[in-house]
Amino acid sequence: RINSDRLWESLMEMAKIGPGLRGGNNRQTLTDADAEGRRLFKTWCESAGMTIGVDKMGTMFATRPGTDADALPVYIGSHLDTQPTGGKYDGVLGVLGGLEVVRTLNDLGIRTKHPIVVTNWTNEEGARFAPAMLASGVFAGVHTLDYAYARTDPEGKTFGEELKRIDWIGDEEVGARKMHAYLEYHIEQGPILEAENKQIGVVTHCQGLWWLEVTLTGKEAHTGSTPMNLRVNAGLAMARILEMVQTVAMENQPGAVGGVGQMFFSPNSRNVLPGKVVFTIDIRTPDQAKLDRMRARIEAEAPAIAETLGVGCSIEAVGHFDPVTFDPVLVGRVRDAAERLGYTHMNLISGAGHDACWAARVAPATMIMCPCVDGLSHNEDEEISKEWAAAGADVLLHAAVETAEI
Amino acid sequence: RINSDRLWESLMEMAKIGPGLRGGNNRQTLTDADAEGRRLFKTWCESAGMTIGVDKMGTMFATRPGTDADALPVYIGSHLDTQPTGGKYDGVLGVLGGLEVVRTLNDLGIRTKHPIVVTNWTNEEGARFAPAMLASGVFAGVHTLDYAYARTDPEGKTFGEELKRIDWIGDEEVGARKMHAYLEYHIEQGPILEAENKQIGVVTHCQGLWWLEVTLTGKEAHTGSTPMNLRVNAGLAMARILEMVQTVAMENQPGAVGGVGQMFFSPNSRNVLPGKVVFTIDIRTPDQAKLDRMRARIEAEAPAIAETLGVGCSIEAVGHFDPVTFDPVLVGRVRDAAERLGYTHMNLISGAGHDACWAARVAPATMIMCPCVDGLSHNEDEEISKEWAAAGADVLLHAAVETAEI
Ligand SMILES: NC(=O)NCCC(=O)O
Ligand SMILES: NC(=O)NCCC(=O)O
Repeated sequence: RINSDRLWESLMEMAKIGPGLRGGNNRQTLTDADAEGRRLFKTWCESAGMTIGVDKMGTMFATRPGTDADALPVYIGSHLDTQPTGGKYDGVLGVLGGLEVVRTLNDLGIRTKHPIVVTNWTNEEGARFAPAMLASGVFAGVHTLDYAYARTDPEGKTFGEELKRIDWIGDEEVGARKMHAYLEYHIEQGPILEAENKQIGVVTHCQGLWWLEVTLTGKEAHTGSTPMNLRVNAGLAMARILEMVQTVAMENQPGAVGGVGQMFFSPNSRNVLPGKVVFTIDIRTPDQAKLDRMRARIEAEAPAIAETLGVGCSIEAVGHFDPVTFDPVLVGRVRDAAERLGYTHMNLISGAGHDACWAARVAPATMIMCPCVDGLSHNEDEEISKEWAAAGADVLLHAAVETAEI
Repeated sequence: RINSDRLWESLMEMAKIGPGLRGGNNRQTLTDADAEGRRLFKTWCESAGMTIGVDKMGTMFATRPGTDADALPVYIGSHLDTQPTGGKYDGVLGVLGGLEVVRTLNDLGIRTKHPIVVTNWTNEEGARFAPAMLASGVFAGVHTLDYAYARTDPEGKTFGEELKRIDWIGDEEVGARKMHAYLEYHIEQGPILEAENKQIGVVTHCQGLWWLEVTLTGKEAHTGSTPMNLRVNAGLAMARILEMVQTVAMENQPGAVGGVGQMFFSPNSRNVLPGKVVFTIDIRTPDQAKLDRMRARIEAEAPAIAETLGVGCSIEAVGHFDPVTFDPVLVGRVRDAAERLGYTHMNLISGAGHDACWAARVAPATMIMCPCVDGLSHNEDEEISKEWAAAGADVLLHAAVETAEI
């Protein structure tokens, strides 16, 4: 079993970097805080005897050698970047849980046949630069490097410039590494494990996603002196489209979600009807056909709603992944490990996207989840217990070592 | 008659300060551009032989002496601040139209009994600091100086700090000046004069306003892993409240408007349901009882809508003025001047708020309006013709001189 105190202390140490306002974290990707978190992680990895490689997307690979020089590594990891008002565990638990696996193997003097590589993927959250899971997406060949470098944050800074600025562009070609397997440990970010009183989520699938960025073009005009019948009101069109997204999600129950997290009004002045409203619709479901139907319906209805108000509407897909089925052998190995360790467990479909979803395209992959209080994530109040954190890391240890022997 | 070329040249000269992105202006109050605009106006006034007084709200008063030492001045003016994506004429026409009146009187060697004071009120727009017409509101005793100094912009900077920073705090007590009369010349900012093919709007009333800042408190949560039935979705509540505001405005036709220009999502990340949504509702009508009913209905229905979603809702009034009836004698004088000058004219109710609305509380006041293309204002494309600008300034000249002789 892993050392639960050491894992917890490392989590708390990392959480000091890029602190949030209410106890969580704001360590968004490619910020100075991200760079500081990377340096701390690197120091820890080197102290644990690992060597660090960095690829051109800034993804960090910390290698513990195996006994077989020809064996491909088992990758374990997640991400250290956070939401602007994120929690201390989302992503971090998977990276530091991976580090804890290596520290435990060092303590026990265990050597594995396959190397073990603890990985910190760049820009998993997609908060600053859409889409999410950007670096693992390039790694898996879903996006080009040029595409990734050209992504912009809300201030117009590009991913490429910012990666250079924080000085974390590595020399490895992205995706050049080959994986024996990929295992990711993460908090559930949903309410099911806690409700079902289970310690371990055995993740069998991940639901698919579309991020649809809607740009509505109205007519900037004075809120006081513009009669109702002369308004070209992009704000009103936005309101009606949000209601429509809610309807689409509700009509696709069970097993579908839809909502809007990001919204920009322009010029955003109290007495100006917005000339432009930009927002991103997030829809998800594990069912491929349903996901496509939901997207098609939104792409048909949003412009129709806008048109009745004379408002222009364009839609750009700024994020997407298909539903994923994880590798049955690895999934079985996670389940067996939980069983063997005496932890209660159940099958789960991941509601959130993860780097494992892209890794699954290039290697056998799966995930392990632990509960989080009230299912709350992407919130500074995100919370887990030391015991929950430890149980999942134990399962990661067993599943990783077993995989690294085969 | 005034010199239409000189007026137009001054308008174009001022528009070079704080240029917008599409031919308009971004010369928001208490910015460096505002300070530069003030300096140019001061230079022009001094060249026209006027002396400048500045009060503690930064409002500028440029005085042309009268022949009677005891006579109270006739104030003519408006504001030089603009919206973030504003036009070249909104406010500026009234200030530079006032300056043109003085220049014309100088050219003709005419001296008036009462002094004439050309006025540039601070923060009329309310774009950076709510409420609008802040300095004239303090002047009229509607707000205290402390209240005004404590207003904050979206970055949290206060009005007081920013006024000090641009170095335009004067030594005059606000409201210490007494007025014989106040006359404000402004573009209509609405479509009526152009549609009716009239050169001059004789402004008899101004509609009343409420700005209701709504703060919705939801639960920040992951857009993917939070099931629909567990969401506390402040964004959805916002959408329903916007639709309700639209309904309230439409059910109060004719003669009422309602809309939303300013919107903030927090944390504003694509995969986070907003924990907080803040927006400002703008409702207006010339009918006092209707205005009160609209406000009461919105204040009752918005929290009820939010509550059905479990969302918290608080509402703060951040701007208000009652409907105004302008001074009948001055209104008649404006109409007579238009008639005498041979300009087509009609009565108007101002759709926008103006400093004249507050001045009307402490002196006889009224306004003169000229058309603007398509009724467009609070838009960089705001446009008027040189002839339209000149006609209103001629009327201002006549009405002001006549008032300054009585
Ligand atoms: N795990 C996680 O929150 N990933 C961000 C991408 C997503 O929105 O699912
Ligand atoms: N004239 C003008 O646009 N004033 C700003 C205050 C308002 O919104 O009416």
